[in-house]
Amino acid sequence: MAIQKVAYLGPEASFTHLATKALFQNDLLVSTRTIPECIESVVNGKVDIAVVPLENALEGTVPLTIDYLFHEVDLYVIAEIQSPIEQHLMVHPNNEKKWEEINTIYSHPHALAQCHKYLYYRFGKVPLEQSTSTAAAAKFVSENEQDYIAAIGNSSAATEYGLSIVEHNIHDFHFNHTRFFVLSKSNLCIQKIGQIDEVKTTVMITLPKDDRSGALHQVLSVFAWRQLNLSKIESRPLKTGLGQYFFVIDVLEDERTPMMVGALEELRALGCEVKSLGSYFTYKT
Amino acid sequence: MAIQKVAYLGPEASFTHLATKALFQNDLLVSTRTIPECIESVVNGKVDIAVVPLENALEGTVPLTIDYLFHEVDLYVIAEIQSPIEQHLMVHPNNEKKWEEINTIYSHPHALAQCHKYLYYRFGKVPLEQSTSTAAAAKFVSENEQDYIAAIGNSSAATEYGLSIVEHNIHDFHFNHTRFFVLSKSNLCIQKIGQIDEVKTTVMITLPKDDRSGALHQVLSVFAWRQLNLSKIESRPLKTGLGQYFFVIDVLEDERTPMMVGALEELRALGCEVKSLGSYFTYKT
Repeated sequence: MAIQKVAYLGPEASFTHLATKALFQNDLLVSTRTIPECIESVVNGKVDIAVVPLENALEGTVPLTIDYLFHEVDLYVIAEIQSPIEQHLMVHPNNEKKWEEINTIYSHPHALAQCHKYLYYRFGKVPLEQSTSTAAAAKFVSENEQDYIAAIGNSSAATEYGLSIVEHNIHDFHFNHTRFFVLSKSNLCIQKIGQIDEVKTTVMITLPKDDRSGALHQVLSVFAWRQLNLSKIESRPLKTGLGQYFFVIDVLEDERTPMMVGALEELRALGCEVKSLGSYFTYKT
Repeated sequence: MAIQKVAYLGPEASFTHLATKALFQNDLLVSTRTIPECIESVVNGKVDIAVVPLENALEGTVPLTIDYLFHEVDLYVIAEIQSPIEQHLMVHPNNEKKWEEINTIYSHPHALAQCHKYLYYRFGKVPLEQSTSTAAAAKFVSENEQDYIAAIGNSSAATEYGLSIVEHNIHDFHFNHTRFFVLSKSNLCIQKIGQIDEVKTTVMITLPKDDRSGALHQVLSVFAWRQLNLSKIESRPLKTGLGQYFFVIDVLEDERTPMMVGALEELRALGCEVKSLGSYFTYKT
């Protein structure tokens, strides 16, 4: 197979980078700074594929990803990657012995939230500072040895920026995984490689404009009487006013099966707008 | 009525502060630094009431508020405030004439996201820096005149920190409102004052553990056949693993009406866990 260009939400050593490396071992990986930039790079044809975070088991959906896929672009999901998220406390190696005297902790807001209890009980009086990514926090700590500061991030960030991990696995909850979407302009499901769990279809549904009572119940009936299993339903603002939403639904079925074809037709007949992101396999790293 | 102590998510001149001042004009307002600190202050009895942001019309739910109310505490919503959110670009008054030469823009990540298009087209090459609040960004700009930097925030922040607004209403979408929850230990609805739109009940529902297909459809049926109108449904992670959620549902009905009493009983009979945050009126500022 030809080498593909794959954009990921960077910087290097970010969780998205780790997930991308696991699925695209022989391709050319390109770091991008923001989720819109990463998604636009596949729209513009600068790359063939983009990998962005979609949902964390603790923090929930990454709103920017879902909203951008709904409002701004027409792309397909060709695979999903699920990766464990392990957060560690790291300092400059020269501060390793006096790490308990750190006076500021840097990380991405999601990582700080994932370690909320640890930080509250262990470093309740130490200020927390937000970074644009866990890798950026690690980089900042590596460049400011004199400041007695720490970063929270993954082990790859510690390696990349030469930091010492002084506390492992400080995230509050086990089972902390993140889902990443692999996006492309073509609706071609990435072929099975290795162990596959399930096939999924993601559809984004806008209810009829008359907003009659029970419209969402009607939408779910379309799936329920066909015994189509939903693994997720989530509401996101339509950006037209408080209380107006679209719904993101993950169905555990290929959209090309007769049952799914019938379901999507029925939804449109009910007056819903339906945007399908396609069907895809899940890869666990 | 006795003066009440009301905690709000600060700092002074934050959007939450503005909303709180509108509803509690004669009470003692206390600034808190984080959403958990604000909520805990009413749990600990340091204050009588806490006001926190719940949901923005563009960005969606504030995950920390919903998750903290579900996982950590047992409080009631005694009122909801809905306020318009208007974002302005502001600089130090001494930089007012050369404001188009600014080299960094500071604000809260939500405010930066709300002005994403404006910033992309008008200041595409200017780095954006995240602050813990729009007010903190304004304060920082007021203290760093020499740096040619700008903040995005509300007009109250400009007044509070003596900044000049150089571009008004730079948020991308109209109809940008935020909902705030007014929280208390007692389940007493704040009495009607002024114009009231509606009464709402917020319930948090966990599906039965056997996770049978169509369980959410069954939950919605409980409301649908009673013609109880839902103004919102949202899934949030249970923090037990990817794909496991609880649901936050807003019903346009008082929970003490016979229909609502019946609905909540039926949900429990179906094996759902139901946590009601109580019934409350909406105040628009």
